[in-house]
Order: sequence, then C-alpha cells, then structure tokens
Amino acid sequence: MHEIFSEPGRVQAILDFESALAVAQARTGVIPSGAAAIIARHASVDRFDLDMIRADAENAGNIAIPVVRELRRRVAGEDAAAADYVHWGATSQDAMDTGLVLQIRRGASSLGSDATQLCDSLFRLAERHAATPVLGRTWLQAAVPITFGLVVAGWLDGLERATDRLSRAAADASVVQLGGAAGSLSSLGEKGSAVTAALATELQLQVPAIPWHTQRDRITAMGASVAMLIAALAKMARDISLSMQTEIDELSEPVSPGRGTSSSMPHKHNPVACAVALAAGLRAPALVAVLFGAMPQEYQRGLGGWQAEWSTLPELFTIAADSMRHMSTAVGGLVVKAPRMRQNIEALQGLAMAEQATLALAPSLGRVLAHNVVEAASGKAVEQHRHLRDVLGADPEVTKHLSAAALDEAFALDASIKASERLVRRMLAERRAGV
Amino acid sequence: MHEIFSEPGRVQAILDFESALAVAQARTGVIPSGAAAIIARHASVDRFDLDMIRADAENAGNIAIPVVRELRRRVAGEDAAAADYVHWGATSQDAMDTGLVLQIRRGASSLGSDATQLCDSLFRLAERHAATPVLGRTWLQAAVPITFGLVVAGWLDGLERATDRLSRAAADASVVQLGGAAGSLSSLGEKGSAVTAALATELQLQVPAIPWHTQRDRITAMGASVAMLIAALAKMARDISLSMQTEIDELSEPVSPGRGTSSSMPHKHNPVACAVALAAGLRAPALVAVLFGAMPQEYQRGLGGWQAEWSTLPELFTIAADSMRHMSTAVGGLVVKAPRMRQNIEALQGLAMAEQATLALAPSLGRVLAHNVVEAASGKAVEQHRHLRDVLGADPEVTKHLSAAALDEAFALDASIKASERLVRRMLAERRAGV
Amino acid sequence: MHEIFSEPGRVQAILDFESALAVAQARTGVIPSGAAAIIARHASVDRFDLDMIRADAENAGNIAIPVVRELRRRVAGEDAAAADYVHWGATSQDAMDTGLVLQIRRGASSLGSDATQLCDSLFRLAERHAATPVLGRTWLQAAVPITFGLVVAGWLDGLERATDRLSRAAADASVVQLGGAAGSLSSLGEKGSAVTAALATELQLQVPAIPWHTQRDRITAMGASVAMLIAALAKMARDISLSMQTEIDELSEPVSPGRGTSSSMPHKHNPVACAVALAAGLRAPALVAVLFGAMPQEYQRGLGGWQAEWSTLPELFTIAADSMRHMSTAVGGLVVKAPRMRQNIEALQGLAMAEQATLALAPSLGRVLAHNVVEAASGKAVEQHRHLRDVLGADPEVTKHLSAAALDEAFALDASIKASERLVRRMLAERRAGV
Amino acid sequence: MHEIFSEPGRVQAILDFESALAVAQARTGVIPSGAAAIIARHASVDRFDLDMIRADAENAGNIAIPVVRELRRRVAGEDAAAADYVHWGATSQDAMDTGLVLQIRRGASSLGSDATQLCDSLFRLAERHAATPVLGRTWLQAAVPITFGLVVAGWLDGLERATDRLSRAAADASVVQLGGAAGSLSSLGEKGSAVTAALATELQLQVPAIPWHTQRDRITAMGASVAMLIAALAKMARDISLSMQTEIDELSEPVSPGRGTSSSMPHKHNPVACAVALAAGLRAPALVAVLFGAMPQEYQRGLGGWQAEWSTLPELFTIAADSMRHMSTAVGGLVVKAPRMRQNIEALQGLAMAEQATLALAPSLGRVLAHNVVEAASGKAVEQHRHLRDVLGADPEVTKHLSAAALDEAFALDASIKASERLVRRMLAERRAGV
Repeated sequence: MHEIFSEPGRVQAILDFESALAVAQARTGVIPSGAAAIIARHASVDRFDLDMIRADAENAGNIAIPVVRELRRRVAGEDAAAADYVHWGATSQDAMDTGLVLQIRRGASSLGSDATQLCDSLFRLAERHAATPVLGRTWLQAAVPITFGLVVAGWLDGLERATDRLSRAAADASVVQLGGAAGSLSSLGEKGSAVTAALATELQLQVPAIPWHTQRDRITAMGASVAMLIAALAKMARDISLSMQTEIDELSEPVSPGRGTSSSMPHKHNPVACAVALAAGLRAPALVAVLFGAMPQEYQRGLGGWQAEWSTLPELFTIAADSMRHMSTAVGGLVVKAPRMRQNIEALQGLAMAEQATLALAPSLGRVLAHNVVEAASGKAVEQHRHLRDVLGADPEVTKHLSAAALDEAFALDASIKASERLVRRMLAERRAGV
Repeated sequence: MHEIFSEPGRVQAILDFESALAVAQARTGVIPSGAAAIIARHASVDRFDLDMIRADAENAGNIAIPVVRELRRRVAGEDAAAADYVHWGATSQDAMDTGLVLQIRRGASSLGSDATQLCDSLFRLAERHAATPVLGRTWLQAAVPITFGLVVAGWLDGLERATDRLSRAAADASVVQLGGAAGSLSSLGEKGSAVTAALATELQLQVPAIPWHTQRDRITAMGASVAMLIAALAKMARDISLSMQTEIDELSEPVSPGRGTSSSMPHKHNPVACAVALAAGLRAPALVAVLFGAMPQEYQRGLGGWQAEWSTLPELFTIAADSMRHMSTAVGGLVVKAPRMRQNIEALQGLAMAEQATLALAPSLGRVLAHNVVEAASGKAVEQHRHLRDVLGADPEVTKHLSAAALDEAFALDASIKASERLVRRMLAERRAGV
Repeated sequence: MHEIFSEPGRVQAILDFESALAVAQARTGVIPSGAAAIIARHASVDRFDLDMIRADAENAGNIAIPVVRELRRRVAGEDAAAADYVHWGATSQDAMDTGLVLQIRRGASSLGSDATQLCDSLFRLAERHAATPVLGRTWLQAAVPITFGLVVAGWLDGLERATDRLSRAAADASVVQLGGAAGSLSSLGEKGSAVTAALATELQLQVPAIPWHTQRDRITAMGASVAMLIAALAKMARDISLSMQTEIDELSEPVSPGRGTSSSMPHKHNPVACAVALAAGLRAPALVAVLFGAMPQEYQRGLGGWQAEWSTLPELFTIAADSMRHMSTAVGGLVVKAPRMRQNIEALQGLAMAEQATLALAPSLGRVLAHNVVEAASGKAVEQHRHLRDVLGADPEVTKHLSAAALDEAFALDASIKASERLVRRMLAERRAGV
Repeated sequence: MHEIFSEPGRVQAILDFESALAVAQARTGVIPSGAAAIIARHASVDRFDLDMIRADAENAGNIAIPVVRELRRRVAGEDAAAADYVHWGATSQDAMDTGLVLQIRRGASSLGSDATQLCDSLFRLAERHAATPVLGRTWLQAAVPITFGLVVAGWLDGLERATDRLSRAAADASVVQLGGAAGSLSSLGEKGSAVTAALATELQLQVPAIPWHTQRDRITAMGASVAMLIAALAKMARDISLSMQTEIDELSEPVSPGRGTSSSMPHKHNPVACAVALAAGLRAPALVAVLFGAMPQEYQRGLGGWQAEWSTLPELFTIAADSMRHMSTAVGGLVVKAPRMRQNIEALQGLAMAEQATLALAPSLGRVLAHNVVEAASGKAVEQHRHLRDVLGADPEVTKHLSAAALDEAFALDASIKASERLVRRMLAERRAGV
C-alpha cells in the first residue's frame, strides 16, 4: 500500500493516464498514432527526477504540471512534433484524478483481498468456538454467558460488510476523469465523448455522465469505506485488548520474541497489534471528515478543497493497510484461553445463569413468579456471597418443582449457551451457502 | 424532520418497537395474545410524562429504561399480569436501536422525496440553460466559456448520486435489533429466531444475520450518506453564493421582502439560503466523524460510543432538512441573469475564446503552430489591452488562412459552448431514458 | 448551562447588548438619554414572542434582525422617536457576538466553579489514598504497584490545568464586538472609539484592538478549552469505568436505587456517569473541529463559517456541564475498594515487585547482575506458577546476600509504593502552598 | 520543519533524551560518570540504521525500544558495563515524550520566527494602505467602503494573537517526561526527583508536578495553537484569493514565470499560495480533533490514543510550515491594485456612501428623517440605475439643506473611510508602543 500511494506511485499513475490518453486519442483520430506510441514509451516514472518535480510542483500548484512538462521534454528528445500531443486537450486535474482512481483501484483490491483472507480466518475461528462459553459483557460489566464464537461472528459480520462496502465504493469510483480546461471538453471539439469512451476502455474504467472535477462524492465515499474497514478492525482490537487484560486474560495476541514483551516486567504482554488498529480507529474519522469538508468546491475547479484530498485519501489507505496487517497477525495467531473464559463465568457464583434458572422454573411457577423468585434469590446470593444454585436449592418453593438434578441442569453452562451457538451456526451456514 | 427526531418522536419510536415486539411474541406463542393487545394499546407517547422520563433517564443511563417502566405501569393499570410481558426478553438497546431505525426510515424517506423534487427542478433548470453561456471558473479565476446548463448538470449529477446513496443506506439500515441481555437472545430460548422474524415482519424491517449491538456500520453509513447530501447542497450553495457576488452578479436567490435585504445598504442581497447550506456543510463532516469515532465499541454493548450516537445522527438529519428546505427555495426561485453572464465573458476581450481560435487555425497551420500563434497573440492582447480577435486579425499569418468572417465565427460565443451543450443534452437524455 | 445557552438565554444576551449600547451611546452623546432609558426598559426577553422570532430569523438570516425589530416595535409603542435609536450604528453581528461573549462569561464561570469544587474533591481523595497500593497499568496490562493517590493526583493535575485554561480563555474572549456595517464603525463617525469604550465599561468587557467579525480565534480558543475540560473528565471516566470491570472491581460509582442497576442481572453495576463523560469525550473533538474549520471566514463577515459557530459552542458548553455534573457525582461518592486493589497486586505472585527485588540485591551484586538474577527468576516464576519471592528464596546466589527477612522486606508492598506516595505528597503540598 | 519532524529528527530527539538522562543520572550519583560520557558520545542518529529500527518498531510497538536497544549495543561495543546504564530507570514513553517536547520546541521556535516576520510585513502593508479605499464586503456582498489597511490590520491582529498563542503553548509544553514503568519513578528510589530536576536543567525544560504519561493536554494545546496559526493564514488566503477573482481583481499573488500561470489561458493567474493555505485550513481542524479525541487514555499508559498522536502533531507542524512559507511569499510580493479597488466602489453608483449621506443630512433633518430620505433615494437609485448623489441632488428636501458642494463632500470617498483609517492608525500606534 505504501508503494501504491508513494510519490513514485502517484507519478506513475499520472503517467498511466497520459499514456492511455494518447493511445485513446490516436485510436479516435485526434492525434497521430506514431505520437501516441512515443508518448506511451516514455511514460514510466523510472526515468523521472522526483526531486525536481517536487520542487516545481511547489510553484506550479500541482504535481501534474511538472510531470507533464518532463514527459513532454522526454518525448521531444525523440520526436519534437510528438511532444505537442502530450496531455492533448486535458487539464492537470484530469491526469491527477484519473491517476488517483487508478491508485484507488489497486489499493482497494489489495485491501479487499487481505480483508477476505481475514474473514476466512474469522470464519474458522467462529466455527471452532461456536460453543465455547465466554462472558457476554455490556457497559464493561459481566452480563450473561454467550460463546466466543458469537463474539467472533460479530467481528466477521462487521468485517464482511466493510469489505463489501469497500469493493462497492471502489467500483463506483472507477470512473475516468476527462474534462479539459473547465469541464466541457471543448478542446476536443466533437470528439470529446469518443475520446472519453476510448480512454475508459483503455484503462478499464467507467465513463461518467459528465466530468466530475468538483463533484467529489465518489472520492469521499471511497475514503469513508476505507474508514469503515478501519473501524471494523478497531472494534476487533478493542475486544481483544480488553480480553487480554491481566485480570481477564481470556485472549492473547500471538507471543513471539521481541513482540510486546518487557524484560523488566516478565508478566506483561502488550497488545501491540491492537494498539496500531486502535490508533488507526482514532485517526480515520478525522481523515474522513477532511474529505467531507473538502466537498463544497468552487465552480469548475476547487481552491483548497481539491488540494486537501491529496494526502488524505492515501493516508487512509495506508493506515488501513497497517491496521489490516497487524490484525491479521493478531487473529491468525490468536491465543484463545477457553478454560479461563469458563473460570471467569464461574467466578460469578451462578448469577450469570439467573436467566436460565428463570426459564427452568417458568413451566411450573409461571414466567412472572419464576422471575420474581430468581430475582430475590439473586439478591440474597450477592449479599451472602453464596452460589445462586445453593440459594435456590434451599428454597422450598423451588425444590417443590425442581429436583436437584433439574436445578443442576439449569446451571449447566453448556445448556445456557445454546442460543449463542445456534446463532453462530446459522450465520456460518448462511455464509457457506453464500446467502 | 424536527418532529421525527424530537424527544416525543424518539419515545414513540421506542414504543412502536415495544408494541410490535409484543405482537410478534404473541404470534409466536411466547406471550399471551391478550397481553400483546393491551401493551399495543398503551404504546402511545401522547400520555407519557416526558419531563419525568428525561429525569429518570439521567440516572438510568438511557431513555428506554424509564419509557419501558412507564409503559409497564400503564399496562399494569389495566392488567397486572400483562405488565410483566412488556419488553419481554429484550434489552434497552433493542428498543432504542430498532426505534432509531424506524426514525431513520421516516427521516430518509422525507429527505429523499425532497431531494427528488429538487433534482426535478435542477433537471428543468439544466435543460432551460443548456446553451446559456457562462464563464467556466477554475481556481476562482475565469477560465473558458461553458454553459450554465453544464453547471447545473454538475449539481444535478452530484445530488442524484447523493439521493441514491441516501436511499440505499436507509434500506441497508432498515434492520431489526433484537438480542436481549448480551446479544444471544438466550432469554427467548429456542424461539429467538422466530420472534425476530415476526418482529421484522411486523415492522417491515430486515432480519439481521446476528444482533448488531456493537457493529454500528449501518448507522454510521446512514450518517455518512446524509452528510453526502448536505455536501451536495453545500456545493450548490458555494457556486450560487459566489455567483451572487456584487461584481459577478450572475445569479440571485429569489428576492422577497425581509429576505436577505438590508435597509441601510439597499444594494445588498444576502444569500441567506446559501449561508444555511454552507454552515451545514461545515458542521456535517464533524458529526460524521463522531459516528466513525464511536464505532469501536466495547464487547457486547458500548460504553460511550453508543451514547455518542444518540444526538449525532438526529442532528445530521435535522441540519440536512434545514439545508434542503433553504436550497429548494433558492433553486426554485433562482434568478438567472444570462445577459450578465455573457457580459462577464465579453469583458475578457476574447481571451476566453483562445482555445477556439486555435481549433479554427489548426486545419491550415497544424495544431501545434496554431497553438503557438494564438498563445503569442493572447500575450499581446493582455499586454496592450486589446481584443484577441483584433490582435489575430492584424496578424498576416492568421489572415492568410482565415477570412474576417471565419475569424468572427471563431470568436462567436455560441459556437464555443457547443461542447458544453452537447454534454448537458446527452446527460439529460440519459436521465430521461432512466439510464 | 442549558438555561444560559437556551434560546431565551441567547435572546436576552442580545438584548443586554442593545440595552448597554444605548446607555453607552447616551453617555457619549450619540443618542438622547431618554431614548436609552426606554430602550433599556424594554430589553427583556420575557415579553418576546420567541416562535415569531424564530420564524423571522429563518428569512432574515440571523436571529438578531427579528430581535432588534421586535425591540424597536416595543420601544416605539412607548416613544416613536426613541425607537430609531435602537441598535444605532451597530450591525447584527455586533449584537450576536457580544451577546455570545456574555453567555460565554456566564457559562465559563459556572463550569469553572464546578470544576474547582471537583478539584477539591480530588485533592482530598488523593490525600486520603496517597499510600493506598494499586496496580499501575500500562497498555491495559498490569505493570508495577503505584498508589491510588497517584492515580487521582494525575486526574487532579489534568483537571486543574483544564480549569485554568478555561478561565484564561474566558478572560481572553471577554471582548466587546462593535464594528457596524463592515467593521470600521463609520456609522458612529468620530465617536466610534468612545462608544466602544463606554460599551465595554457598561458590560465589563475588554476593548478590542479593532473589531473582530472575521477573526474568530477567541471563540475557537474558548471552545477548545471547554473541550479540554471534557477530555480531562473523560480521562477520569476512562479509568473509573475500567476499574469497575467485574474482574478488576477496584472502584465503583456510587450505588443508589435505579442508578445503573439491572433487575435481571443483580451482579451488574453500570457506570452511567462514566458513559456520559466518555460520550462527551467522543463528541467534543468534532465540535472543536467545526470551530477551527469555520475560522477562515470571508472578508468582513463570514458566509457559512460564522453561522456554523452558532450551535456548536453552546453544544460544547452544554455537554461539558452534563459531563461535569455526572463526574462530580461519581467522584463525590466514589467507592474505593482498597482491599481488592491489594488483592489484584498479590495475584501477580510477586512479579509486580521484581523491580524492588532488584534494588534490594543491587548493593551486593551490583545493579546489573542484580537485574539479571531477578529477570531469570521472574521467568521461572511465570513458567512454574510460583511466587517470585519463593524462587528467589531458593536461589543460593540470592540467599548468600539477602536474609529471609530482607527478602520479605523487598516484597513488602508498602515499601514498594513509597515513590508514588512521595510524588503525591509533594504535589499536594505544592498545591496547598499555592505554587 | 520537515527536517525537525523527519524520522532522523525524531530518533535524534530520543537520543538527546537518553544522553541528557545519563548525564543527569551521573550528576546525581545514580550511574557512573564514565558511563554517561560514553552514552552521550554514542547518542547520534548519524550512525543508526533507520531501516532496521523501523522494522523492529513494528514488532516492539514503539520506536524508542529499538533505538534504545541499538544505543545500548553501540555503547556496549565500547564498554559493556556502561551499556547497562543506557535508559536507566526510564520507560519508552519517557524518551518519546521528552523527545517530542524537544522537537516541539524547535518547531515552534521556527514557526514563531517566521510568523513574526510575516507580522512585520503585514504591519508595513497596513500602514502603507491605512487610507487606501476598498469595498468592505459582508455575506460576499459589497457593503460600505473601508480601507485596505483595515483589512490587513485584521489579518495582523489575528496572526499576532496566533503567534502569541503558539509561543505560550510551546512554553507550557516544554516539560520533561520522566516516570519510569508506571509513572511513579520507583525505579530511581529516593533519587527520582533529583534526577528529574537535573534532567530538566540539562535540557532546559520545566519539571512537571508529576509525570504526565496519560495527561496529554499540553500536547493537544500545542497542536491547537498550531492549528490556530494555520487558520489565521487560511483567513488571509481566503480574502486574497477572493480578491484575485477576475471580476474583482484587487489583489494578486506575486507573478513569476511558472507560478500559477497557464499557457493555454493567458488571462489566468492562479492563487497557488492561497490554495496551499486553504487546504491546510481544511486539514488542520481534523488533525486537532485527533489530538483531542486521543486524550482519554487508559490508566498509566494509553493504548491507541498515545499512538494516534505520533504522526498527527508532526503533520500539523509540517503543514503549518508549508502554509507559512507560501503565505509569506504571497504577502511579501502582494500586488495591491488600489485604482481597481476605487473603481469597484464607484461601480456601486454612490450606494456605498448612503451611510455617509445620512450623516451629512442628520444635523439639519434629524438622524431619523435623514435616514428615511436616504433610504428612499437609494431605492430609487437602484431601480433607475442612477447615481445616488444625483437622486439626492434632485430632491428639494435635500438641496434645501445641503449645497451641491456639501453633497459632493458627502460622497467623497476619502472622507467616508476616515473611520477605517483612524482604527488602523490607532492599532498600529499601540503595536509600535508595544501595548
């Protein structure tokens, strides 16, 4: 990702536009075929002096101007006439926007395929732990038992939708920009549409209804979908890092020498992957805000808004890739401590099973009375530090209806997490069936 | 919109959930039918004391808790047994999220239909002015002539996509939330899926793969699509307000007594609608950032993130509606000063037609030489404050190839904006054909 | 706070400006004294129809226009001539900005005094727990023991600076706005400066170097300082809510009926105050961003930027007050579970004391060798689930230099937290001395 | 700036901390003097392999860990014993935070001196144009005449306060960070305070009340003050770019070959400096929001929040420097077209002088009647496209009181801008007097 959105990456994408434009214009009879061939031959960043281009861009106002100038100079070295056909009828923003679209396509494809692989890991993890009990936690408080598979299914659900949004946004954004000086393509006379269509074919991009120099929604939507992916990863990192807390200790990022360890504090295991993903989760919203804030651009070419996009969208892709790489490592080698998960539930002295005890008593007492009986017993259990099962087992109103065995069953952890398992299995089956 | 997202609007949406839940649970045999009927009958905000509910919510941590308590109290007044079936098996977030989804659906539908109407206005405006010349402007500088129809087509293009995104996001977000205490629906035993399905049917919402208490992408995407609409309106407001500048004076918001006028400065006409839309355009990106930033929520129910959504999404809908109302007024009565647009082009002494002069000379001089000749003449025109046509008309190299009539034609404004007109007509034809 | 920044609060602040302006102008001989007296008498929001004003503001573009119109109408009812002196020489923004400054002063004073009280609570809490051992935690992992007093001292340190920033920002922002139509005060001829000075005296505000209609730094800085306060509260909420986790259980928000409890899950105690403060911490950064983003306003009066401030700064004050109220409750009744804090340290089997064991061995082994010996023993302790003291006690190289008693002393918790206690005592002493 | 905040710049700042720490610890008897000397000798980034450090930082979780490791390795090459005293008693965050503070000090000093120079340019510009008439503009509409000096005085006023805020924030942030593993400095036993004080002396920084690992207000306030500077520059850029519009044409960025010009559109002169400053103005608010959003960090060391700061504050400094450089160029060579400014006023047919005509009539007609007479005449002037002076000159009620000469004087532009000139002169005199 760093490479795609590096400075050479950006310049090459601009050159890819110039090359394809020349080819498209040759094909539609706008410029001579020979000129197009020469232009295409020189459109490679390898031979460009990026320091000079950066310096010139400072004065010119954008990077396409010196890139085009340099391309023209190089083409002229071979054929002076051909040089005049470089960037024919186009404006800088045509080159920069279409170049950006090419970078987006590469970046989204790379991110998307990493995301799909991570989804696969999560799928397997959810399956493996479909019935592994873990405390559900709300408001950072222990609530009722669910399964770790359900937790992972939630991550998977979020990440799949994010991946899907990403690919849809990338497809939507894969549109040629070609408008000339003020978006009317007047410089190409009657050939405007034909050149645009040929250029789109050449680059395998869509033809827009009209040029979109100051209609930036597709760029912003692309950034928003990348931020959505970052948020999905950050949610995962939130849960993993919380579950790695010393006192909870249910999960762990994979351990390896020099990774998140501390020589002076041997008990520590820092969630370094999660830190990267959470930091990305804090930065991405602001970067998206820049894109939205930059949208109301002036007239036919923006002043400030367009320029604000230049480093913002690449930054989003880059931190998404960093976050993805780290979280793929974290999930790929995730240590799941099922015994500890069970222990943390048991430490609640049966209170986490109050709901299930109510369901067991309901057929005989009626749902409402059952609820009241269990609620009272729960209060007593907390107050007296007793196990809820024991409090209920000492209540004649309960034992009248439930045998000790039935009561034990009500407190059986495996029974209580059936609902979670059912949800996970159904969701995974639907995924497998491609629903 | 203010009504939909007002406090009574929110409470009613929660009550709509409670009512539908009871009906769905009766239908699936989870609670008695009689209880459901009574619950449904009491689920109307009209009889609720909102001051009390607000005060209780402060302690309870959310508004659903006092709403449910009050509903239960009211139901109990009619039938004590039925009261216990209020909110059966659900958690507060189920009620609040599903309630929010219902508000979203109403809000998006209202916004969407206003947006569609505004698109229609823009369509007609673009059609009417498909061939009305106006200066294209880039970097806030006069560039080359285009048509006002092309400007409006750009607005329409952006607004249509925004409207489309809005309705897709609303459809995506139209999903039931029902997960119970920790998202596993364990309180409903084996009936969980059946109740969810019945509830979805009742409310005409989709069934999610699994509960989504801490997977907030659909909420955030909804907010992002509202912000996109706000940005599309702000872009329009940017152009209109700039075009209303005293020295440009090409457009005007409709004039009416007391609207944007100043008694002490009679020449002023303040773009009050644009100010609202531009202010919304400055605020919306930050509100979207809150939604993205709130996404990495803890475990099975967030602490802080979920709460940060509560006023943010409603605020987005509300400012979108304000902006829409103002811009609909502005566009509906927009004063288009075509003569002034033409005058502003003419004030450029033919320089805006340099490109077209080049095209006229190209067949005889070759494109490259033509370009150089016109460039030199343009420089001279600027320096000597002469009209470019006159400079060219005095150049023997030009007159050798172009008669005075041909030169006049090259400077004919109507010819120079053909490319713009062509783009507009094609786009509108595609729209009409429903492409 | 809600009252200060309510709609009546805003209108009254505008009327306070109008009244003071008339008095100042009477005092400087610009308008008749009698007129000023009448204007002042009518400048009370109680008699204004806010619905009508809101409706008119929609067309007028700001709320000051209908407020002034209505004030003029009321004054005219008593004395037609006096009515013409209402708002004499001023522009709407003068009234709105100065009005906002008055609201800011009230709001900041209220927030500041609440913050000072909370600082006092924190001071006492830090003092009481200066020597109460608790685990220091980094990366969400147990690190080494510190004291809970040090934790609280950190909160106090942050909150004090935030309070100080708030009062400085409020003092900086307490500046009159009076510039007339375009900021030159030309309408007051040579009396401009005199009127501004008299107005400042009347309202006890500062006189600016020049009018500041489009120099908004003081407003933005005010918002930033409120956001800083919100962040200081959110940091506290972060720590408290994490420490309330079931498995950590070292702190608790005060318990009272109906506050954060759950009838079906009796073991839960939701941190409702923390949720409010954390949600505010997620929202405030975006609101600050709106203020910064609105700063580059056009020419002598902004279009969009100024308007974007209108609801943003009040919102910041309002959520700050909500957060303050909740966190004052939380800290005021904070349950500190010192025994559990100690228990959580002990559960680490002496590893948390590794650093102190090193210090004990250093005099005899040298610091470097001591470090290596303890590091090796720590590794063994983790691996074999033994207490670090026992591993070291079984190592002849250790026992050669340290008696059992000396080793016990090295693992004495109270000794290990001396450094924390020292830091806290010194900081509190400096505070008490007013350093 | 790019250099200060580059990767080598960051590593060197960390090494500056390590070197100063060793010296301070030698001075306080914590480590041997010889070791300190060796450590200091090796603490230079020149010999470090940054690629390796970057790669290791990915696993370690922060860059200080590999930097310290490498420093230790180098020191060990000279003296194995000394190597153990590298980073003695410190934690990674101590090195990174103090290093950042050193970068901040350098960055703020550089920015501040550039800002001061720009203030000097603005001072001279305001002085030169104290009496140069220009249209005041509000709501993007022509309002009343002011002077260009007043416009510049506004820029100066904003920039001076921003510069002042910057230097105060930098002074506030110039605080040592030294807390060890969990902020209690326990590793240094009783020497903690002494070492901190010696370190502060060594680096010429302040001693904090207590370590501030998770109290980030000074970092955020620093970022906010940089953003304030960016906003002040963007405000200037807003006005300059608007005034460069073809139809207004009152100002121009300095013209030089290849700077903002277009070969195909010779009449264009793009405001490239303004574009940079406006883009910075769109990006900075979001970067500040990241800093605010990152503040509620966990316990004694943050997870995600701290990491989110790492690239954000440097980015703010970097774009501020870019914006400063461009706007210094723009202001330094600003082309001020005073005749065109006057022309734009005259194009308003006297309406801009309506206020002054009222003042002229007031002594004889009374202020109120004078206002009404001029208001009516203004309406007529607009309607009939006549000059307001002529309409008034044809009104017997006016000519009864004002001679033609008196009327001419009322419409004299130079008289009408006296108030502006007075404001500017007074402000500049105060500045010169150092008020």
